[in-house]
Amino acid sequence: MGDPAGVGGELTLRAWMALRVGGLPFVALDDPGRLDLLARAMGLGVPVRVVASAEEAVAVFPVALPVLAVPLDTVPVPGQPDPTNAKAVISSIERATRLALDGAAAGVVTNPINKAALYRSGFAYPGHTEFLAALTGATGQQIMMLVSPMLRVVPVTVHASLRDSIAMLTTEMILGASHTTAKALRREFGIASPRLAIAGLNPHAGEQGSLGDEESILIQPAIDALRAGGIEVSGPWPPDTMFTAKARSRYDAAICMYHDQALIPLKTLDMDHGVNVTLGLPIVRTSPDHGTAFDIAGKGVAEPASLIAAIKLAGELAHRLARLGLDRVCSSIY
Amino acid sequence: MGDPAGVGGELTLRAWMALRVGGLPFVALDDPGRLDLLARAMGLGVPVRVVASAEEAVAVFPVALPVLAVPLDTVPVPGQPDPTNAKAVISSIERATRLALDGAAAGVVTNPINKAALYRSGFAYPGHTEFLAALTGATGQQIMMLVSPMLRVVPVTVHASLRDSIAMLTTEMILGASHTTAKALRREFGIASPRLAIAGLNPHAGEQGSLGDEESILIQPAIDALRAGGIEVSGPWPPDTMFTAKARSRYDAAICMYHDQALIPLKTLDMDHGVNVTLGLPIVRTSPDHGTAFDIAGKGVAEPASLIAAIKLAGELAHRLARLGLDRVCSSIY
Repeated sequence: MGDPAGVGGELTLRAWMALRVGGLPFVALDDPGRLDLLARAMGLGVPVRVVASAEEAVAVFPVALPVLAVPLDTVPVPGQPDPTNAKAVISSIERATRLALDGAAAGVVTNPINKAALYRSGFAYPGHTEFLAALTGATGQQIMMLVSPMLRVVPVTVHASLRDSIAMLTTEMILGASHTTAKALRREFGIASPRLAIAGLNPHAGEQGSLGDEESILIQPAIDALRAGGIEVSGPWPPDTMFTAKARSRYDAAICMYHDQALIPLKTLDMDHGVNVTLGLPIVRTSPDHGTAFDIAGKGVAEPASLIAAIKLAGELAHRLARLGLDRVCSSIY
Repeated sequence: MGDPAGVGGELTLRAWMALRVGGLPFVALDDPGRLDLLARAMGLGVPVRVVASAEEAVAVFPVALPVLAVPLDTVPVPGQPDPTNAKAVISSIERATRLALDGAAAGVVTNPINKAALYRSGFAYPGHTEFLAALTGATGQQIMMLVSPMLRVVPVTVHASLRDSIAMLTTEMILGASHTTAKALRREFGIASPRLAIAGLNPHAGEQGSLGDEESILIQPAIDALRAGGIEVSGPWPPDTMFTAKARSRYDAAICMYHDQALIPLKTLDMDHGVNVTLGLPIVRTSPDHGTAFDIAGKGVAEPASLIAAIKLAGELAHRLARLGLDRVCSSIY
């Protein structure tokens, strides 16, 4: 569902329109009445059908958007998040996760939530990912990979100030993110010998120490250890030249030292088709690479490409795991 | 000239081939013998002609590459910088600057130098820009603007570690860079009402303080002061979404807080055509947006697009200044 005051509902309707013929079936965990109203208000001819199970959703999908009902407490107003609906938002996440853990669904795709609205209702997790980790009993580090048709990036530090990101960076974090990424590229992404490019932190990757020493102190030791462990790895690369088309052709994922080092090239190259994949969970989980977009919610202008890409990618990842005999994934795999 | 062991010479030869018909005439300040040898070794049919003045260079340009002779002390070996040639490299910069100050040349385009080789011979400036500032008696702050067909960026902090860049950032530096940029956009770039986009420093531009406070403490006060001064300015923008095509259409230059925030999007969008423009000098000065490339020097594979773009842009900027009656620019204009 995501936040019902955001763009999630209209994106779900449009994703069904795009995927109903020949696409991967999905089921919305949402309030069927509000989706029906939204479809009518926006003039989208999307029939909404309540279903009782994932199996029924698959049968219904070609003719209507299947919905496992998660009733809202308040009719949502686009653009105005309402804490009284937080319980339903959380319930939607819990039930989707349960379906994936039970093997009834191949994966979970989450629409954007508004953390402030959830916090006001007592939600105790920093975000979606930590909540999913708790629900699935995941052990170890979860990492975020951003995937677009042109680039895969993994930020080692994510939601901290730039100053704190530098301060918290360790060789162990770079190693952990790289190992998890290499494993996911081999398994979920089907790349037999994945190549990782490790970014420097500083301009010109420190220019032999004259522009910073994190490359020699923190990053090079991680590269040496990865290489010793048999992972094909290169770097530390000057951050500004490692995302050109030529440079990108030489690696399968870039391990980045901070949020914007990863997100600037990804979004600059392709704003619409970026997908967020959480690695290190015992279930497949993707999400669109944007927020609730309260400023345009309900106006019918939100771009569904990222949600559609997130649904397709979740299907692909689950499909590859299934071929590996890992369709019932368990937390021990990471 | 730039470093004669780097790619500068071959780029100059190729730039003449690209610009000889209908292009802007330029004169090389270089060793004519080494350019002639290089042209032969690379199989380029470029006649090299020694000239005595800029006027003669204009007459010669359609039929030969005009060269104001700056003799080297040692025959350069591609890829192997030699401190004994540092004197000639420095002399080339000095003489080019003098031509521009005297009005005999419209501007100076500098090929990449190797700072280490110059330092070893006693060169006392951090780089090209500081040397040019001293030669021209420039007062005030010089700033670097990077220009490509898709984007103009100005990094407020440049050649420092990321940690130091954050520590040194001040409201005054943001203001200085923004004022110089706005003035240059109006004058040299011919944009009557330039629009500046100011980047945040932190992920999501700090997300209302939860991911860093530099936006509210340092950046917003600069924006307020610029706006009060009549400059059309927006921000602080989340760094990851401000370089998409849609976002770029809303501003004429992005003021960035650190080197890679500016250089990652510029080089990711267009590696080959980026040009470095120095603002705050009393002369027009551009340079290609790459280094000496010792690893490929002399192999005939270096891409001349950035040098060609740098020559063209220097011409455009000088042309606009001339139309404003400022062809004899003086240091008081900044």
